[in-house]
Amino acid sequence: MKKAVILLSGGLDSTTVLAMARDAGFDIMALTIFYGQRNHVELQASKRIVKFFDVAEHKILELDLRLMGGSALTDDIAVPTHDLSLANAVPSTYVPARNTIMLSLALGFAEVSDADDIFFGANIHDYSGYPDCRPNYISAFETMANLATKRASEGRAVRIHAPLVNLSKAEIIKTGLALQVPYELTHSCYAPVEDLACGTCSACFYRKKGFEEAMTKDPTRYA
Amino acid sequence: MKKAVILLSGGLDSTTVLAMARDAGFDIMALTIFYGQRNHVELQASKRIVKFFDVAEHKILELDLRLMGGSALTDDIAVPTHDLSLANAVPSTYVPARNTIMLSLALGFAEVSDADDIFFGANIHDYSGYPDCRPNYISAFETMANLATKRASEGRAVRIHAPLVNLSKAEIIKTGLALQVPYELTHSCYAPVEDLACGTCSACFYRKKGFEEAMTKDPTRYA
Repeated sequence: MKKAVILLSGGLDSTTVLAMARDAGFDIMALTIFYGQRNHVELQASKRIVKFFDVAEHKILELDLRLMGGSALTDDIAVPTHDLSLANAVPSTYVPARNTIMLSLALGFAEVSDADDIFFGANIHDYSGYPDCRPNYISAFETMANLATKRASEGRAVRIHAPLVNLSKAEIIKTGLALQVPYELTHSCYAPVEDLACGTCSACFYRKKGFEEAMTKDPTRYA
Repeated sequence: MKKAVILLSGGLDSTTVLAMARDAGFDIMALTIFYGQRNHVELQASKRIVKFFDVAEHKILELDLRLMGGSALTDDIAVPTHDLSLANAVPSTYVPARNTIMLSLALGFAEVSDADDIFFGANIHDYSGYPDCRPNYISAFETMANLATKRASEGRAVRIHAPLVNLSKAEIIKTGLALQVPYELTHSCYAPVEDLACGTCSACFYRKKGFEEAMTKDPTRYA
């Protein structure tokens, strides 16, 4: 069975990606990177999801990006509550070089595990301002990755998959529901109140809107 | 003063790079990544070097790559004692995706710090089998990095410098000595005995050979 490394945050998008990779016949190796983000409730969500899907391997890597700062997700910058898609600017929830750091760790994990495929939940729709979610970035990362590793120098190429990149949140949810994704186990909120979603941050905004547009019940527990 | 992020391990190469960037007029921000490598004596060396050069900012990030394994530097694989340059194969001291992970962290640090330049000590001479030290890899990383960040999307490009890439160890040492690099404070050994160099691992081999070929006294304290 061919293996794939999945960057699993425990959120709606990455959980859908896991289900898609599984449906495509991959043996799943989940990688969760706990980077000191505020929403550590995600970490618990990632564990529930791995258990639900009976994933054999789940690595949790700790990397304290709070040292670096510069983001509302790791720093004392307020989490935005408004509709980010209205602005073209990069939102304050952008974590400097986050996807590059996460994909690099996934690349190392893929090499060690003899996996040719890496999946992650990048999406350009809701967060149009995130540079590291765009197709040209993903393609440049793949090119670099194929020059970076021992595996690649031996001719075994790595592929970076971002199957959600052009989907709307509603399309992501419909895709996931068709694959029996248990969205009640996922967590998206940037500013949870204990383990409940705040309902007002930008992550909650898009999640709510997604369920509405998918015309399905939102299973999220709000504070 | 223009800022530069320097990946500083505390070894001979990265210390020389720091001195070169300083000499080129950069305000230095040192980044040391402690990835659970055996030679944690390097971490102490990095602190001595930062002190010697009176570097204002030194970030130490911990990232436990032992979880990942797959290398003699992080795993229970024997550190090689022979001359690696005789073989074309990637040596067991190769750490999966190491330079990609380190450069990604440097990229995040550069973005937060408003730095356009990143320096690291990649070198193709001694370790010809390391894919992530080659010029085409470095150039592909730079291309990717310029699509990855908010800074780049605002037109402020980042440059990845590997000034040692084509130098022999003797040339590196001569360059450093001309810049008053205190090599006695640096640490290269993969398998130190307390804080003394083993004298037999591949890192010691190339270091010794470098001082011989540079026709200068080797200040390393061997066990």
